[in-house]
Order: sequence, then C-alpha cells, then structure tokens
Amino acid sequence: MSTPPIRLPSGVRDFLPRAAARRRSLAEKVMAVFEAWGYARIITPYFECADVLERGLGAGGRASAIRFVEPGTGEVVALRPDITPQIARVVATRMQEIPGPIRLCYEGAVTRFAGEAGQREILQAGIELVDAPEPDGDAEVLAVAAAALAHMGLPEIRIDVGHVAPAAFVLGSAPDAASRVLIASALGRKDRAGVRSAARALPEGIAPLAEALATLWGPAQPTLDKAVALPWPEPVMAALEQLRVVLAAFGELAEQPAPSVTIDLGDLRGFDYYTGVRFAAYAGGAPDAVLRGGRYDELLGKYGRAAQATGFAIDLEAVAQAQRSIGVAPPSAVIGVAVHGAGASELARALRATGLRAVVQQRAPEAWGAWLRGAALDAAIVGDQLIGSDDGSRSAKRAIEEARAGDTKALIALLKAP
Amino acid sequence: MSTPPIRLPSGVRDFLPRAAARRRSLAEKVMAVFEAWGYARIITPYFECADVLERGLGAGGRASAIRFVEPGTGEVVALRPDITPQIARVVATRMQEIPGPIRLCYEGAVTRFAGEAGQREILQAGIELVDAPEPDGDAEVLAVAAAALAHMGLPEIRIDVGHVAPAAFVLGSAPDAASRVLIASALGRKDRAGVRSAARALPEGIAPLAEALATLWGPAQPTLDKAVALPWPEPVMAALEQLRVVLAAFGELAEQPAPSVTIDLGDLRGFDYYTGVRFAAYAGGAPDAVLRGGRYDELLGKYGRAAQATGFAIDLEAVAQAQRSIGVAPPSAVIGVAVHGAGASELARALRATGLRAVVQQRAPEAWGAWLRGAALDAAIVGDQLIGSDDGSRSAKRAIEEARAGDTKALIALLKAP
Repeated sequence: MSTPPIRLPSGVRDFLPRAAARRRSLAEKVMAVFEAWGYARIITPYFECADVLERGLGAGGRASAIRFVEPGTGEVVALRPDITPQIARVVATRMQEIPGPIRLCYEGAVTRFAGEAGQREILQAGIELVDAPEPDGDAEVLAVAAAALAHMGLPEIRIDVGHVAPAAFVLGSAPDAASRVLIASALGRKDRAGVRSAARALPEGIAPLAEALATLWGPAQPTLDKAVALPWPEPVMAALEQLRVVLAAFGELAEQPAPSVTIDLGDLRGFDYYTGVRFAAYAGGAPDAVLRGGRYDELLGKYGRAAQATGFAIDLEAVAQAQRSIGVAPPSAVIGVAVHGAGASELARALRATGLRAVVQQRAPEAWGAWLRGAALDAAIVGDQLIGSDDGSRSAKRAIEEARAGDTKALIALLKAP
Repeated sequence: MSTPPIRLPSGVRDFLPRAAARRRSLAEKVMAVFEAWGYARIITPYFECADVLERGLGAGGRASAIRFVEPGTGEVVALRPDITPQIARVVATRMQEIPGPIRLCYEGAVTRFAGEAGQREILQAGIELVDAPEPDGDAEVLAVAAAALAHMGLPEIRIDVGHVAPAAFVLGSAPDAASRVLIASALGRKDRAGVRSAARALPEGIAPLAEALATLWGPAQPTLDKAVALPWPEPVMAALEQLRVVLAAFGELAEQPAPSVTIDLGDLRGFDYYTGVRFAAYAGGAPDAVLRGGRYDELLGKYGRAAQATGFAIDLEAVAQAQRSIGVAPPSAVIGVAVHGAGASELARALRATGLRAVVQQRAPEAWGAWLRGAALDAAIVGDQLIGSDDGSRSAKRAIEEARAGDTKALIALLKAP
C-alpha cells in the first residue's frame, strides 16, 4: 500500500511567518480598537454540543456547521461556524446577573463547511453589544466598525447600511415559499427585471415596492429620501426613520474622518439572523464584504435571557487578502541579529535587552546571507564582521564594543543600515 | 420532547473577561520571549487529514486524537492534539528550501481526548528549533524555556532535565513487552520496590541499572555523578556526557538568574516521541508540569526532510491555574470610563485618544456602581458627577474641563483616584 500524500483538508491552511505576522497584527489592531471602546475580550471553545450551538444559528449557519460524534460522551458536537451564538449563550447563562449594556469582543477561527469552493477555517474578530438600546446601540457598533476598519490600511472603505423591515414586508407578502425564494434571489442579484417578473405573484400595490427594493441602494440621504417616498406600511416607515436616526447618531459618535456610508435596502445576506438595522463593509482590494453585522434581538432569548443585541464580525482573512492585493506589506519584524563565535551568548543577551531579536548561531552557515534571509534576520555578527542579509559585510568590531559598553542605540542604527 | 439543557462538552470551557485577559497576557508574554530569541511565529490549522497528522504523533498522541469524517470530501480528519507534528510537516514541505537552523514558535489550542477525567481543549505556546546541532540546540531551547517561565510570575520554577538513553537501554533489554510495561510503569511511579521486582526479568547486570534509574533524580551535579558511576554501556555513557555538556552550555546561554535545574533519568512521559535530551518544568502552585520538551530527531524525516530538532510546549492552562492558586491577579485592564449625557461622544473620543477605554452610555443605569463593576469600568462621568465603581461620587466638572482643554494627564490621575 502506498503512503497517502502529505496534504491538508481543502479550506484550511498554514500561515508562514510573513502571513502569520499579518494576521496577528490585524487581530491585535482591531482588538485594541474594540477595547478602547470598552469591549472586554472573552474566549469561547472551538466546538460545542451541536444542539446548543444550533439554537442560535440561522438556517445558513446550521447548514455550514461541521458535526461529529465526540468519542468521550457519544454526543454530537459541532465546530463553531459563528462566534455570536456562543457569546449569546455566555451572556444568557454565566453573565445572567450582570446588568446590561454588556460589551464583549473576541477573535478566533470559525470553521464553515461551504462545499468544494468555499473556505472553511476563517479568522474572525468581532464585538457584541448586548441589551443595547435602539437606535444608539446600532450607531455605536457602526462607529466601532468604522474605527476598526480605519486601522487596517485599506483604501476606499464603504459601509453599506440597511434594515430588514422593507424586504421582510415584501417577502412576507408573497403567497407561497416558491415565489418568496424567487423574489429574494432576484433581489440578491439586484436583477430588476427578475424582481419585476417574480413580483407578479405579489398582491397589487406590493409588487412595485418589491421592484423598488432592487434600486434602493446608493448614497445615504437621497436613497433614504427615495425609500420614504414610497407607500410603505407604518412599521416599515418607522424602520426607515429609525435608520435615519441611527445614521445621524453614527455621525455624532464616529471618529473623524468617518468612512463613506451608503444604503442598501435590498441586501438579504444574513437575513435569517438579523431583526433590524444591518450593515456590511467593503474596501478596495476586497472582492466581497470584509465585515458584516447588525441587530439580532431574538438570539439571546433562545438561551434564556430576552435582550436586544447588535454586533459585527470582521473577516480577517478577507482583510489580509485585500491588503496583499493592494500591496500593503506585512508588519516588518523587529530587527533581528545572529551572533556567532566567542562571547556570542553575552552579546545576544545585551542585544535582547535592547529589544532586538538575537540568535546565538552555533554553527557558521556556509552562506550567511541566504541563511539570514530564511531566518528573517537582518544581520549577523561573526567575529569582526557584520554581515547583512544582502551579503554585504563590514567591520562589526565597533558594534560589539558599543553593545558591551551599553551604547546600544548606536548599535541598532548600525544594524539597521549596514 | 423537552429541550436539552444548555451545556458544554466536557473538557471545553468559556473564558470570561478576567480569565481571558490572563490567557492573552500569558500568551503574549511568552510569544514576546520566543520572538526575542529569534523564533518566528507561524499559524497551523485546527484540524488536518488524520493520516498526515498521525505520521508525526507517537502512540499517546494517536490515542488522544479526536477524528471525524469531513463532510465535504469524506476524508477522515483529526483535531490536532499536538502542534509539533504540524510544524514538522510545514518545515519539511513548505520550508524545504530554507537552510537550517530554523526557529519557529506558535500559540493556540490543541484538543485531546483523555477520557472522562482529562481536559480536552488546552491552550499551548511553544517553539521548535529545527536542524539544531546537539548539544547547543538542546541548551538553547532550555534557555528559551527558562526565559519564558521567568516572565510568568510563578515561584519555585524548577526544570527537570533527562535523557532517554538510560531508560531506553534498560527497557530495550526486557525479554518481552509485558515485563517492559511493568518496569516502565514502576519507574513512572518512582516505585523502587516495584522496579526491583519487575527487573528480575532483566538479564543479570541490567536489573541493578533498572533499580538505580528509580533513584536517579535530584540536584544536577551529584545525580549525574551518581549516574556515570554505574556500569552503563558506551552509548549511554556518551548520552550522560552529552547531558553534562548541555547543562554547561545552558548555564552560558541562559538569562540570569537561571532557574533551578535538576535531573530525572527515570521520567518516561513523552517517551515514544523524544530521542535525546528531554525536560519538564514545574512551578509552585502547579500540580503537574507546566512545560514539556525535548529532542525529537526522527519526526521531520517522517515528512520527508531528515533533520534533527528540539522544542517544547508550555501548557498555558496549567500556568494560569498555578497563577490563580498562588494568588497572582490577572492583568488589570486599562482604566475605563463611561460618559453619559450632553457632549458624551466628544468627551469619549478625547478619552480614547489618551489611551483610556471610553464608553458612551446612552441610558443612565439605575445603579451606576453595579453597572460599572459588571462592565469592568472604573468610573462614569455623568453630568457634573464622577461616579466610581464603589458608588462614591464627586464633581467631574474639572475632569471634563481638563479633558476638553487637552490636559488629559490630570484627568487620568483624577479617574485613577476618585
């Protein structure tokens, strides 16, 4: 029997040092923003009892959960496809005594089964604002989303804001599930002709609203004005007014300059999950949304604590890919030095004490330059030679003397520009 | 049908803010040490094809791996019980062109099936030094282990160092598997009478060596002296000499003050994995080892790159529990403030710009003190009142004026001592 090849399951991957540094840096930057806004980090497990996790998942989440039988107990467990239901569970059970609003944040991997094409392991970071008054809670999570995105080095950030009410009214008026699916699918593609055709099944007066939904996207003010000019029933009108108030409160709360905010009332992604204002953020270099969020007032009740809530998750993978595609370099490592020969340990200790990375290299590599590049180090100190990763070498005597004398600033400058 | 209760699978858990802050702080501290020593961080996936992962697992690792069928491909995958085989795979395949020594580090969760009693999801951080010359490579990983442990606030750190050669010689002399298991088990318990009894099955001359093994632990120098006075065959003598050289090189490399180093030649845990010098670290407050490591020269070859290697993993869960049991407090959060009322957004922005956490609190909680404690915030600024989490309140007028005037240092001092 031949040995099977060394391979990874589709959709999971390794991150080598440069890629890993980019992920860590992104995660740390957004977590720092979340914490500055008063969100406290929690950690939840990678898998849970499937029935517990699935209480809080919409149809899409349930379809994407990878389940297996846990050998210890024979229970069916599932890898988390989403962290929000886990936080809802924690807040409803272990934080039951804590009065709201509660602000929590997280980062970690989620695993989604998405057929042959889709990625499975996704690095996420996000926040949840529980017991959040409406509309201020919505404005706050939008402002945190904007602040987090502003720290990620992406151009052309745009936040698309919507509300589930108009589409829920239209889809709720459909006579049967089949026509509802047809309308939703055409809306999802912004296919006006398709919506018009599918909307024929709707009661008179509602078909034009369905058709209008496919066009209700664009700059915030004119799009909202266009929407409120239509003959919506009172609850939808109230939702649109709510949306206007949220955007005004966001303008007040957000750090300046705030990103561009647009409206999209026909976006249905995540629809089975959200109950009010929802949003998605886009950026130059990213083919799809890098962030999705919205209000989900019915989730916590499923875990026994009726509470309004809103939040979002950033797809750190999508952000990392966007950064790469537009040429944002990963964070450069702290300067690193290899030291070889007599007194190397002592010199390495002195270098580390200055905040440099320092390696004691026991064997002299045949080709120092190539080895330094592979080890992501900037220079080596070999006897009297200072060797850069470009293979240019010069006297290191002064560097070593300076490090021994404690004048490490000059040493760092020397190593930075060999 | 009644709804099943909200529960977690045994062995996994949630970390609420204080516990999560401790884990993050521990992980960041040890990763900073690893990076200072020139180790570059990589990220590997949570599950892999079972046959690929298991190439690099010893018998114990294979027994503890949780396997399931991946629904997309029908392949059997396994949650990683150990990150070292993943790094061996990455180095042997994706880093094949990079000359050694290669220094890599990681942090993340591993999942182990350990019956009813054992914990399943364990937070780990560790390093791997690939293509590491012996004995300097061993000394280096010991020095990095010592430096990492020194940053964790634990008292009475002790590193127990051993070598697999003496026990391998004794167990290799056993006439059959049954007597080998008996001797190993008695050695594991340091049960001298049990070893004496089981060693009767060994050839003459080897039984006394087996019995001696159960006593060969204690302070480094006398224990090594005692060991080399015994009639070991030449390869075991060479291994003991190697161990002496490693400890001397460690003394040279380690940051001062170096932790206490002891010898244990009868410790067999991780035995099917290590091929040379091995070690475990203990600390006050931790019932078992907080760190385990050693040389594993046969692992990378299983993935197609024959290379010596050595490394260790820190059990961050064990360290966190030890910190708790001896009363080390989790890291205190940055000072946090809630701001309520007119001008709150503007003031919150000014506070955040100073590095404080700041929340705009839309609704006035009935009991600010209780709410602040729950939200882990230190104070609230409500109109003219500065309210501490102890419910003592005083004028905040000056604080607000100072923040508006940009004199935030005085504001921070005021908030720190309300």
